[in-house]
Amino acid sequence: MTTTRRYLLTLTCPDRPGIIAAVSSFIAAHNGTIGESASHSEPDTRHFFMRQEILAASLPFGADEFRTLFAPIAGAFNMQWNISDSAVKKRVVLLASQQDHCLADLLYRWRSKEFDFDIPCVISNHDALRSLAEWHGIPYIHVPVTPQNKKPAHAKILDLCEQHSADAIVLARYMQVLPDDFCNAYPNRIINIHHGLLPAFVGARPYHQAFERGVKQIGATCHYVTHELDAGPIIEQDVIRVDHSESVEDLIRLGRDVEKTVLSRGVRYHVEDRVLVHGERAVVFK
Amino acid sequence: MTTTRRYLLTLTCPDRPGIIAAVSSFIAAHNGTIGESASHSEPDTRHFFMRQEILAASLPFGADEFRTLFAPIAGAFNMQWNISDSAVKKRVVLLASQQDHCLADLLYRWRSKEFDFDIPCVISNHDALRSLAEWHGIPYIHVPVTPQNKKPAHAKILDLCEQHSADAIVLARYMQVLPDDFCNAYPNRIINIHHGLLPAFVGARPYHQAFERGVKQIGATCHYVTHELDAGPIIEQDVIRVDHSESVEDLIRLGRDVEKTVLSRGVRYHVEDRVLVHGERAVVFK
Amino acid sequence: MTTTRRYLLTLTCPDRPGIIAAVSSFIAAHNGTIGESASHSEPDTRHFFMRQEILAASLPFGADEFRTLFAPIAGAFNMQWNISDSAVKKRVVLLASQQDHCLADLLYRWRSKEFDFDIPCVISNHDALRSLAEWHGIPYIHVPVTPQNKKPAHAKILDLCEQHSADAIVLARYMQVLPDDFCNAYPNRIINIHHGLLPAFVGARPYHQAFERGVKQIGATCHYVTHELDAGPIIEQDVIRVDHSESVEDLIRLGRDVEKTVLSRGVRYHVEDRVLVHGERAVVFK
Amino acid sequence: MTTTRRYLLTLTCPDRPGIIAAVSSFIAAHNGTIGESASHSEPDTRHFFMRQEILAASLPFGADEFRTLFAPIAGAFNMQWNISDSAVKKRVVLLASQQDHCLADLLYRWRSKEFDFDIPCVISNHDALRSLAEWHGIPYIHVPVTPQNKKPAHAKILDLCEQHSADAIVLARYMQVLPDDFCNAYPNRIINIHHGLLPAFVGARPYHQAFERGVKQIGATCHYVTHELDAGPIIEQDVIRVDHSESVEDLIRLGRDVEKTVLSRGVRYHVEDRVLVHGERAVVFK
Repeated sequence: MTTTRRYLLTLTCPDRPGIIAAVSSFIAAHNGTIGESASHSEPDTRHFFMRQEILAASLPFGADEFRTLFAPIAGAFNMQWNISDSAVKKRVVLLASQQDHCLADLLYRWRSKEFDFDIPCVISNHDALRSLAEWHGIPYIHVPVTPQNKKPAHAKILDLCEQHSADAIVLARYMQVLPDDFCNAYPNRIINIHHGLLPAFVGARPYHQAFERGVKQIGATCHYVTHELDAGPIIEQDVIRVDHSESVEDLIRLGRDVEKTVLSRGVRYHVEDRVLVHGERAVVFK
Repeated sequence: MTTTRRYLLTLTCPDRPGIIAAVSSFIAAHNGTIGESASHSEPDTRHFFMRQEILAASLPFGADEFRTLFAPIAGAFNMQWNISDSAVKKRVVLLASQQDHCLADLLYRWRSKEFDFDIPCVISNHDALRSLAEWHGIPYIHVPVTPQNKKPAHAKILDLCEQHSADAIVLARYMQVLPDDFCNAYPNRIINIHHGLLPAFVGARPYHQAFERGVKQIGATCHYVTHELDAGPIIEQDVIRVDHSESVEDLIRLGRDVEKTVLSRGVRYHVEDRVLVHGERAVVFK
Repeated sequence: MTTTRRYLLTLTCPDRPGIIAAVSSFIAAHNGTIGESASHSEPDTRHFFMRQEILAASLPFGADEFRTLFAPIAGAFNMQWNISDSAVKKRVVLLASQQDHCLADLLYRWRSKEFDFDIPCVISNHDALRSLAEWHGIPYIHVPVTPQNKKPAHAKILDLCEQHSADAIVLARYMQVLPDDFCNAYPNRIINIHHGLLPAFVGARPYHQAFERGVKQIGATCHYVTHELDAGPIIEQDVIRVDHSESVEDLIRLGRDVEKTVLSRGVRYHVEDRVLVHGERAVVFK
Repeated sequence: MTTTRRYLLTLTCPDRPGIIAAVSSFIAAHNGTIGESASHSEPDTRHFFMRQEILAASLPFGADEFRTLFAPIAGAFNMQWNISDSAVKKRVVLLASQQDHCLADLLYRWRSKEFDFDIPCVISNHDALRSLAEWHGIPYIHVPVTPQNKKPAHAKILDLCEQHSADAIVLARYMQVLPDDFCNAYPNRIINIHHGLLPAFVGARPYHQAFERGVKQIGATCHYVTHELDAGPIIEQDVIRVDHSESVEDLIRLGRDVEKTVLSRGVRYHVEDRVLVHGERAVVFK
């Protein structure tokens, strides 16, 4: 993706003739230049998805006025839609526990400017990763979670996310199940990494399961969090080849690599507004 | 890709505001429904590429009238463009020599209806693969090529391609260099498979080169044929992992697998009008 | 693997010091030359696996005398073991139903001498693939299977396998569940291809399941057949990347590619005596 | 690989009968238990390679006495050989310049104990990465290199490597060509990462070359450093898929990922004594 300032327009709606025409004529009427664009129509559900990158400098107005002017078109087509400005960095709160591989990878990519978003804070139910976050200059907030305080602790974390104006929340191996009201507060904006190629290896100790079964590939899945555990829309997946010479410890080590790679790709797709969800499926415009 | 009848519209032109609007408004004005669509603008050259699938049943006219009606728009934007009808099968002539792995794979996919095009004939400078082609019910034409008759032999092959109304020509391990006038007759419509991950391993005996060098990956490249050997726009590439236990014969065997896979993908992309060329680069809308 | 004539020695036994020494000293005592060799000891179960390729010309005797002379060593270490002669081609019976992609791929590789084994016959519960097999010069035996005759039909197929001295049986998309006594007759010698990355997508219509779930990778698993459906030792697995633009039909088409690739690799490993099974896990020396 | 203490025995020699027997009989005579083992004989050169992991606790002596006792066998077979003790951590000096992706990845894996070796220091011709190294608790030595002081600067770096008893030197995107005497001092112990799938894209600005050519795969190569630039034995390679929507900046970003992954795998193979070199080829026992 070019680094020139862009507006990212995404929308989904029931398919019918004229959607692309209406949207791109609106943009052309204001002399807008479109970089990448892509659309998809699901043949079975007749549902439509579109993403367009508009060069910001080509339009005579900003994202707010775009919102106002475009609203009637969106209404006419019954769109769920969004426009974001690449110059306004999204705010991504990271939740972690004790394992650091995903957190370290995300922080590295952020520090080296591979990621174009802000990280207002790292929140964790343990204090173990404080030094890592703070070396990157990012505040680290320790919110202990016990079986007894699960509800109030997560209410506090939710409150912290709101205080920090989180646009998205990334579970970087955060080992707690989020309560339903937390999930409801950020629909399709909480990103999790699952240690397995969903829908396989649901549940605990997946690498031990994989080892026992003698599998030749282990995988990871990045998905949005929904009420149902391990079941939200899939954003990204990948695998890595293994064989008998790998011990369970090797599988766990290799699993960390594929987990962090898949999570970082999924986070990038989300932040670049490449993921559009309809029902249980995520369309990812890469 | 859906199997519903579609018109595939592809175009490239210098980028400027309003291209997508003009094209999709034209389609919308005739009540056309767009399935998949994608566009790309090269940031450095400011060149624009677009592909749209239009459901044939949604338009009140056919591809010929589309051509007439759309021509003024194409002219105004200085487009190189094409529209094809998925119901009118493209005609793909296959050229082969003695190795059969690519030919057998292409014929298998054609026979099992994975490929949606016609194969009017197989032409070869050897008679070795006649039985394979004929079992598939496809005419096999043997045109011997010797150092002495290279020019007239290829004039004859070119003539045969024209007689059979070839839309595209696939070199399925055809081991002869095509003369320039042959290349000129089918620009970006002659598809070759190269035994290596171009630009590496140009030249002869690439797997022996690879073995001597102890490489850990061998690859193949599907590209359009141009005057310059091994240098046309790249349509598709892939690799396969190898190690020291593989002999040169193993590399050749594994190379056949990656060659046929990459060629069959490249042919599919071409026939589905997914490949748009500008200069030396091919944009592939997958 | 070199094409020079070799004896392939494979063995598994409880681990203890001196196994490799005993085996290789026996071979050295007879002046035998070892090509590739590999061994593995499972740290948790302390079970030992070994495979050695011995150049046939270096030994003063054949496989039969090897068997006699080596038996005391094998007994002393309580080995499960086998020696096979690469000059004595294994006999692999193929079972198919109506889908031809795996069968066509296996027959192609056999015909082009990529596979170094004999195919005494193809057996099918349908007559659909007769022409394909017979063009390759391989007898095709149609054994209709109905809900009523399942038991006698499979008794007949088992009988045919025995008549044709099958060393291994490959289920090339054979869509029937084999009865237990059939499985018992060829332990770890019946090879199946499963349309999914086991243990995911057990059961029917896996590509429809995968599509509904919006997965980004589809896979296939080659495994030995045991009593428990979809549960035998895994020989090989692989995946292919997909996205939202792929329809169920595309997934099925791409699935065929990964299925046939994974099956052909698994069959090769089996025939080259690279797969050693202990309990539910297969060690594959590649 | 198991984490139990092991001796890693590696050797290469001209092939002849009895090598494995001699080595494993020696080990068995001392009641040694072998974990993983593998051997390879190159059919064309008749050169032999072997690697064995011996459980340390099973032998009545240490690596030093092993060396003394084994020397006569090694001499009889004209072996180049080595035995190392997994409990004696290798010392790996890292050289870097200004890019931090490979260095950060190596340090992360070291800190999280994925790597089982010591890093006595990081040496760089720039001061840019001091904070990164020092946060990990590793001394950072800045040795400025200018066109004028190239020779003495590298003499100083070589001296530092010797002072720190380096077993291996990793060029983690160290952007200077090492002088010949430096290469000579650590044959097959200086590990480099090349930004391309060698032998393609030799030379400068490889990702710009790749972009211009419109390639669909970019790769990286980990190799030992020899006198000839970009030409030493290849330890590991891998690729990543790209397409037209990726800008040169994207290629560089994705290239960083494949570079650091391939380098970290290569370093692991080296440190675990999995890489045996003969001539220009590296045999890697994975």
